[in-house]
Amino acid sequence: MGVVSLFSVAAEGSITSPKGFQAGGLHCGLKKTSRNDLGAIVCEVPAVAAAVYTTNVFQAAPLKVTRESIASEGRLRAVVVNSGNANACTGLQGEADAYEMRAATAQALGLADHEIAVASTGVIGELLPMDRVRDGIVGLPGTLSSGSEGAEQFCQAILTTDLVKKEVCVSMNIDGREVKIAGAAKGSGMIHPNMATMLAFVTTDAVIEQKALQGLLGAATDLTFNMITVDGDTSTNDMLVAMASGLAGNSELTTEHPDWEAFAAGFQHVCQTLAKAIARDGEGATRLVEVTVTNAVSDEAARAIAKTVVGSSLVKSAVFGADANWGRIIAAVGRAGQPVNPDTVDIKLGDIVVLTASRPIPFDEEEALAYLQGDTVTIHVDLNNGTGEATAWGCDLTYDYVRINAAYRT
Amino acid sequence: MGVVSLFSVAAEGSITSPKGFQAGGLHCGLKKTSRNDLGAIVCEVPAVAAAVYTTNVFQAAPLKVTRESIASEGRLRAVVVNSGNANACTGLQGEADAYEMRAATAQALGLADHEIAVASTGVIGELLPMDRVRDGIVGLPGTLSSGSEGAEQFCQAILTTDLVKKEVCVSMNIDGREVKIAGAAKGSGMIHPNMATMLAFVTTDAVIEQKALQGLLGAATDLTFNMITVDGDTSTNDMLVAMASGLAGNSELTTEHPDWEAFAAGFQHVCQTLAKAIARDGEGATRLVEVTVTNAVSDEAARAIAKTVVGSSLVKSAVFGADANWGRIIAAVGRAGQPVNPDTVDIKLGDIVVLTASRPIPFDEEEALAYLQGDTVTIHVDLNNGTGEATAWGCDLTYDYVRINAAYRT
Repeated sequence: MGVVSLFSVAAEGSITSPKGFQAGGLHCGLKKTSRNDLGAIVCEVPAVAAAVYTTNVFQAAPLKVTRESIASEGRLRAVVVNSGNANACTGLQGEADAYEMRAATAQALGLADHEIAVASTGVIGELLPMDRVRDGIVGLPGTLSSGSEGAEQFCQAILTTDLVKKEVCVSMNIDGREVKIAGAAKGSGMIHPNMATMLAFVTTDAVIEQKALQGLLGAATDLTFNMITVDGDTSTNDMLVAMASGLAGNSELTTEHPDWEAFAAGFQHVCQTLAKAIARDGEGATRLVEVTVTNAVSDEAARAIAKTVVGSSLVKSAVFGADANWGRIIAAVGRAGQPVNPDTVDIKLGDIVVLTASRPIPFDEEEALAYLQGDTVTIHVDLNNGTGEATAWGCDLTYDYVRINAAYRT
Repeated sequence: MGVVSLFSVAAEGSITSPKGFQAGGLHCGLKKTSRNDLGAIVCEVPAVAAAVYTTNVFQAAPLKVTRESIASEGRLRAVVVNSGNANACTGLQGEADAYEMRAATAQALGLADHEIAVASTGVIGELLPMDRVRDGIVGLPGTLSSGSEGAEQFCQAILTTDLVKKEVCVSMNIDGREVKIAGAAKGSGMIHPNMATMLAFVTTDAVIEQKALQGLLGAATDLTFNMITVDGDTSTNDMLVAMASGLAGNSELTTEHPDWEAFAAGFQHVCQTLAKAIARDGEGATRLVEVTVTNAVSDEAARAIAKTVVGSSLVKSAVFGADANWGRIIAAVGRAGQPVNPDTVDIKLGDIVVLTASRPIPFDEEEALAYLQGDTVTIHVDLNNGTGEATAWGCDLTYDYVRINAAYRT
């Protein structure tokens, strides 16, 4: 089964491509630069909604508000997002501010409070300058459009240290109707999602059961957003929200629907594309690193090992230096806390075999150097010890990561 | 009970200070520089011996040989160590080489094979150039001395990317006899010990039961070497060996001995001093970071949280930038996977209170900057949620860490 046959990628698509969605964004003064820092996605009908959140003990105030909104009726009309301030560790005032963001957005759009989700990203521990937020929200409806311009403004508004916007759109055939799924995300630092991710938003015009959407969101997250790491730090603000307008007019999608597989494949592609884009645009990154582990004792073991390798500071530094240092790869495999046969490990860098049965294989250093200087580095670890497999994504560790994070707050 | 009353630190002491030990080292050609790369500690009598090893699945060949030697009679006469080559992932030839190192050292010193421990550190996956090792071992006995010069040559021989040697010696009174405990270690990179450490060697002239020594070694390791991290990567070669000559002439130490507490405190001080020295001299480090967690639900929870905070790339980068970014500290506390009350956390940087009951406290940024630019940064996280406590040590994340590790092998 090739995924190509189940859905197609829309080159020009954005979060406003699925029917029923508008987006917009503006600069209200939360960021020191003139970049956008407030945005919204709005659906013209109540969209079936699902979300996953960070597992960090310290959860930012907006997460509480969003949970409450979705719990109300399982539907959303809009999500409002600010960057530049995470509204985390801000106490009761922070909660009050998040509720006020929700209420102000509802008022500006003529909606009910419980139809609005709230998300924030940025510095932890500072109160939102609510005067700026209030003024910004009043201006938000004027920025909304269903064209690519609105999506562009939204994508810019959610970025922090990100260098590029992250967007994707796919389409597929459900009941003979065209259904679209699109997504936008921000990432960059404090990226080591655990059962949730940095801010990511998925829109679709599919008609879908809420329970099926929530289940799909969780499953896709485990294989995509939860498989990326930039620095091993799980944020207090991670949130992934999916909204389905239902305007495609298909018969309701459930896991029993004959076209479920196509929808699920497209949905996972959207999540994976955003997750990889976050990894590739990790703070200071020059390369995307993709680690695939095969033939582990279980998928869970493969996942743990893939994440350990892709998260290793020494592996990440070696990739930055274009150094085919497989010793660091095998050392990371060995400390992942998973069952591994120490005598049966094969490792490839791209197509270059460097280790067979846990023993070094002579390889062409020049060829390896050229490969490691490329845009994407794939590391394949075959444990020859079972049938479990997984892929994880990350980036190299560079001078710029240190520079960015030694001076982020001050 | 102050530790000061139980033992005293010998400012000029070294691993040859305890009675019965000699040490030495030389350059045999394993390192590209002219620094020493082969060394030995030799005891004039069979020393009671104990060791702990890395938990990495991939264990280097010398660990197998050393385990076998200690298992034989629980005693050692010598340990031979090389740097520049880890003899890890080198297969049957690597094992044969480690056995040959042991046999050659036994022959050069006129001892039996099983009286020799072997340790290696350096690059993974390359065979030892045994001709150089053989020649070096022949020259080793000529470098041995019981004075500080021999210890100095040994300490130099075990370093890789370390900038400074790590040595400590304490003395105490057992049965009215002076007993000394001394140690030497190397660290720098791939430092995240788990039930063992990078190479470390402890000598003592105490008379001590082997079982008591092994138990003490394990307990002290958990509170010292296992509480440091440089980069989260656990090496394939970690090994800590303790040798007790018994020449102090005290009655045999067991956990029942009236002076056990003094010996254990001195022993832990030796381990902690070496562990902190490894953290302070972490690759690229400019500062030692000490994280203390108090009033956790258990000591285990405190340990996990302290290690998570001290290992966070974002916290480490902030310390390098002298940025009082407590948001990253609390985010690390929250992702440690331990029970934490999100509303009761206090955080101090040195004496500067930055968070009380999980809420920011205004502080003097200039004062914080001055503190964070110091040589040692202490972070105190009080969870106000139990009685567990722990301290972990690490270092900042700097441009030099990236530089060193982007170019280590090539």
